Amino acid sequence: MDHLKIAEREQPEPGPGEVLLKMKAASINYRDLLVPFKGYGSFTGKLPLVPISDGVGEVVEVGAGVTRTTPGDRVCPMFMQKWIAGEPDLDEITSALGGPIDGVMQEYMVLNEGGLAKAPEFLSDEEAATLPCAALTAWSALVTEGSVKAGDTVLLQGTGGVSLFALQFSKLLGAKVIIISSSEDKLKRAAALGADEGINYTTTSEWGKVVKDLTIGKGVDHIIEVGGEKTLPQSLKAIRPGGTISMIGVLSGSKMGVGLGLIVTRKVRLQGITVGHRNSFEAMTRAIVQHRVKPVIDRVFPFEELKEALEYLREGNHFGKICIRI
Amino acid sequence: MDHLKIAEREQPEPGPGEVLLKMKAASINYRDLLVPFKGYGSFTGKLPLVPISDGVGEVVEVGAGVTRTTPGDRVCPMFMQKWIAGEPDLDEITSALGGPIDGVMQEYMVLNEGGLAKAPEFLSDEEAATLPCAALTAWSALVTEGSVKAGDTVLLQGTGGVSLFALQFSKLLGAKVIIISSSEDKLKRAAALGADEGINYTTTSEWGKVVKDLTIGKGVDHIIEVGGEKTLPQSLKAIRPGGTISMIGVLSGSKMGVGLGLIVTRKVRLQGITVGHRNSFEAMTRAIVQHRVKPVIDRVFPFEELKEALEYLREGNHFGKICIRI
Amino acid sequence: MDHLKIAEREQPEPGPGEVLLKMKAASINYRDLLVPFKGYGSFTGKLPLVPISDGVGEVVEVGAGVTRTTPGDRVCPMFMQKWIAGEPDLDEITSALGGPIDGVMQEYMVLNEGGLAKAPEFLSDEEAATLPCAALTAWSALVTEGSVKAGDTVLLQGTGGVSLFALQFSKLLGAKVIIISSSEDKLKRAAALGADEGINYTTTSEWGKVVKDLTIGKGVDHIIEVGGEKTLPQSLKAIRPGGTISMIGVLSGSKMGVGLGLIVTRKVRLQGITVGHRNSFEAMTRAIVQHRVKPVIDRVFPFEELKEALEYLREGNHFGKICIRI
Amino acid sequence: MDHLKIAEREQPEPGPGEVLLKMKAASINYRDLLVPFKGYGSFTGKLPLVPISDGVGEVVEVGAGVTRTTPGDRVCPMFMQKWIAGEPDLDEITSALGGPIDGVMQEYMVLNEGGLAKAPEFLSDEEAATLPCAALTAWSALVTEGSVKAGDTVLLQGTGGVSLFALQFSKLLGAKVIIISSSEDKLKRAAALGADEGINYTTTSEWGKVVKDLTIGKGVDHIIEVGGEKTLPQSLKAIRPGGTISMIGVLSGSKMGVGLGLIVTRKVRLQGITVGHRNSFEAMTRAIVQHRVKPVIDRVFPFEELKEALEYLREGNHFGKICIRI
Repeated sequence: MDHLKIAEREQPEPGPGEVLLKMKAASINYRDLLVPFKGYGSFTGKLPLVPISDGVGEVVEVGAGVTRTTPGDRVCPMFMQKWIAGEPDLDEITSALGGPIDGVMQEYMVLNEGGLAKAPEFLSDEEAATLPCAALTAWSALVTEGSVKAGDTVLLQGTGGVSLFALQFSKLLGAKVIIISSSEDKLKRAAALGADEGINYTTTSEWGKVVKDLTIGKGVDHIIEVGGEKTLPQSLKAIRPGGTISMIGVLSGSKMGVGLGLIVTRKVRLQGITVGHRNSFEAMTRAIVQHRVKPVIDRVFPFEELKEALEYLREGNHFGKICIRI
Repeated sequence: MDHLKIAEREQPEPGPGEVLLKMKAASINYRDLLVPFKGYGSFTGKLPLVPISDGVGEVVEVGAGVTRTTPGDRVCPMFMQKWIAGEPDLDEITSALGGPIDGVMQEYMVLNEGGLAKAPEFLSDEEAATLPCAALTAWSALVTEGSVKAGDTVLLQGTGGVSLFALQFSKLLGAKVIIISSSEDKLKRAAALGADEGINYTTTSEWGKVVKDLTIGKGVDHIIEVGGEKTLPQSLKAIRPGGTISMIGVLSGSKMGVGLGLIVTRKVRLQGITVGHRNSFEAMTRAIVQHRVKPVIDRVFPFEELKEALEYLREGNHFGKICIRI
Repeated sequence: MDHLKIAEREQPEPGPGEVLLKMKAASINYRDLLVPFKGYGSFTGKLPLVPISDGVGEVVEVGAGVTRTTPGDRVCPMFMQKWIAGEPDLDEITSALGGPIDGVMQEYMVLNEGGLAKAPEFLSDEEAATLPCAALTAWSALVTEGSVKAGDTVLLQGTGGVSLFALQFSKLLGAKVIIISSSEDKLKRAAALGADEGINYTTTSEWGKVVKDLTIGKGVDHIIEVGGEKTLPQSLKAIRPGGTISMIGVLSGSKMGVGLGLIVTRKVRLQGITVGHRNSFEAMTRAIVQHRVKPVIDRVFPFEELKEALEYLREGNHFGKICIRI
Repeated sequence: MDHLKIAEREQPEPGPGEVLLKMKAASINYRDLLVPFKGYGSFTGKLPLVPISDGVGEVVEVGAGVTRTTPGDRVCPMFMQKWIAGEPDLDEITSALGGPIDGVMQEYMVLNEGGLAKAPEFLSDEEAATLPCAALTAWSALVTEGSVKAGDTVLLQGTGGVSLFALQFSKLLGAKVIIISSSEDKLKRAAALGADEGINYTTTSEWGKVVKDLTIGKGVDHIIEVGGEKTLPQSLKAIRPGGTISMIGVLSGSKMGVGLGLIVTRKVRLQGITVGHRNSFEAMTRAIVQHRVKPVIDRVFPFEELKEALEYLREGNHFGKICIRI
């Protein structure tokens, strides 16, 4: 954390196809804890690096030939700057902001117009800043890859940013939601957001069986898996034949003690989700606008308190997103 | 193995929608080693049970209302009798022959017309008998779930029935094939069947990296994973971002020592394959007929030597399928 | 219409895999006007034929080996008896009740268990009887083939059975609905069911342009096309690039005066919808149960007044479905 | 045609994300006949406009931040400069070279790196120049949208550029090909390229029925429709239930005299194809490289004879592509 420093850079100018943004707000993710120190997965960025992937800014100036945006638009930079749609190639899946590409903790930044998408007007800057990683990850899992539909049952784990967006989106799509948490209080707050069933996994360690009973033995259609090592064995008990487990994170470890056999005999799909592409982001914002979905924000920090914000995230007691005002 | 007994039953008659078959040949799979003793995955069949899932027979008589077949047709009973297409429900995915439903080691058997599909005429009885499980598993992985296309690269493991069908089908689809084996001789035979590259995994234990180099750092598009515990870590190194690993078997164990994180950061899909449905079988046989694909048969045993055939399978030195003449 | 006669038949018995139903209610569709006289599309049934495709009944007795249903269940016979999932083959797409297969206007009928699906318990018999053709057609178009999702915009034509189910399902899925009708009163009733925008096509003949303006020039994502000749040219103006027009019916004629070029240059998909398969029906009923969707019924006739019911349908002044009590 | 003029422009310089190309060759399409005079579909370009969409060039210089290509690479500009993958939005589907964006008939041109893809090294410049429109249209229809697989049957119309690429690609994918033409000589040449069956539509006007007989009454799985008005009625007779007709062109007119009903009752999909996106282009070139597919070139004209080349195309006696050496 001590590597974080505030610095002055010259104000950049937009070239052809580029856009100059005045940044307004940012939000932070678990990934932002990792990148400054040791990289993220297979990505190895160069230093110095401007941190943080998620933000929102106002278009101040556009370069020659720009057609997708105009000055005055409020836009979100895409997490993966070059991934527009479809399956990503290596160049696209390694074009992430906050590493290897300079992130959003800047007063001004220049990006290619292809790496931007309009932010919903009815959201505050802080709310809009939560969309590029957490919201899009949930949308990619449920919609782009999962095709969740009315009448499906979705299982969610915990009440972090991705899980709460997944809860809100699942309800828009007409699905039923079962959520697990270690806190009765958080389960109540999730119920207030629309969760149909809640299970305390501290008191109910064999929650896989309970979930299956709740679906009358059928199993759930879709699971947003954020825990990995400790939760996946239960998830494999809770999923229906032919169901999908979206692998979003491995917060509890990256091993799998047992269960590969169940994947085979029950035709389970384990689908890794790496945030998502711009087309998904645009589809997501159409849904957010139509239904006036408000992101759940736990707390907002000023620009100078990024370290405090990251510490707060690390403690893990938040409910929803943690934001930065720029 | 001592539980296997030859018995006499009354000849059955086909009711409405049913078909009477005179069985001609069968073929055996690893699953047939498991079922007589301890069940297969979550299936728990009742005893006594006629064993073996794969076979071919001639239609002798049809019941009222049958429209899909006529006497004289040579047909294969589907591995999953009730799974016609789409995602399976619990009833469909537990409708397997050889457990819980009586299998094909019978002179005559009656099945619903929906659970049958025509066998390609140019194949011998033994060849046709290899299709319901091994061939269909390969087809479901590559085509139904995998949408492998010309220009893709497919990685195969070993030279058992599924892998060799996957080799033949991959070439029909225009894909490039890399195959790993512990035997130089088997690699040569695979090359003769069309494999583009072969790697001896005994001498090249870090084959994941070698595969990646063969694809100029890009990684392969699709892997037919039969090993599980010992091979999956290498497979995760060999797969491209956004690629698919079809989980067919877990012959080397069902744990996963590490690697869940890679699934997330590289958007990998781990897709369990549970044989397949009738629509896939029919699409597969159209391809087999058009290209006159001959299944690779290692050895044929007479009906009375089923135990010897199963022992031979257990030894694991075969190249291709082991069949039974009925 | 004079060909319709009430007759006595012997009570049938269920063979292996079959189920005996005591029929409770039916509902009628435009197709039921055609079949008794001149067939429907390429179908040519034998006479005499029991008419009407849609109904609901109670399971009275099951034959040997039946696992999908038990006596006491209330079930809907599937419109296409043999189409379970996936793309239909000729045998499956010609297995329709009410022609060529005897329809539901019977006190008792026997069907294969594969051709049945449970009816939602909270619906009345008449309501449940509306699901097999009209509701499933709407679901197949929007969900199975269309993958409509939250934030999409759907355009509906008129207020017949399919269009009203499409309205209800679109709202469940989180989509925005624009509906056109010739009647201000019907537009009001559609708004009460959740339609976001209504257009009177009598007073606004160039409604394609108006729809486009409503979507800020973008065009709608999905159109449920029931008119054909007179509506399709407007639909092609209203659809977005890459959008889907589900072809449900051709009530105003089957020619297309112009417009094939637009299909090419705007990447439009014209997708014929032929009711749907059992898997879709089961997914649909899960959504109906979860959201307690009540089918819109215009009027119920007694069994003896089938002719009057068909006449009433032919007049075309209904809003929603017309049912028969058996 | 008299509007075409040779002009001098200043040599452009690549900005950030941009690439300077020295153009090597071009190829022409029917669209190039339309654009200079009256636009193409809904596109309305500004004048003056550099014509011709398809070409190949060498990377001479790259701007700041370019990661997808380096000087010395030989690349094809994408027909739709901004359509990378997935469904296109209006901005992407109107980003075509040769109108509204300046086309490839230039000695030097600057494009965004996202709008380029590597050309296969083993092809000549003229051969590589045929890929962006004709080859990609065929690939998009068969693979991206059509998922044609081994054992499928594809029907092709005529021997223009798209149809011959569709023939070559269909064979790579393992499909069977039936082709219709007005010329016995062209049918022979198509057979030499791998066509399985040929039908002379001059002598066999009811070719729809003949095609159906060739598939034993089943119908073909996929049709590449280039004629429109005069061919579509026959195509609707030739397609199987659930099959796809890819709408590529409407060379014989854009009306449809009858047949919308068949689309409904046989679940036919009419899929408009608007060239395709960069991801498809890259998948296509992998297949071309692996199988060393050589585009069929009819004739090559020098740069100064563009008018003569366009006249030659208009006459319609070519077999394969017409190219320009720059």
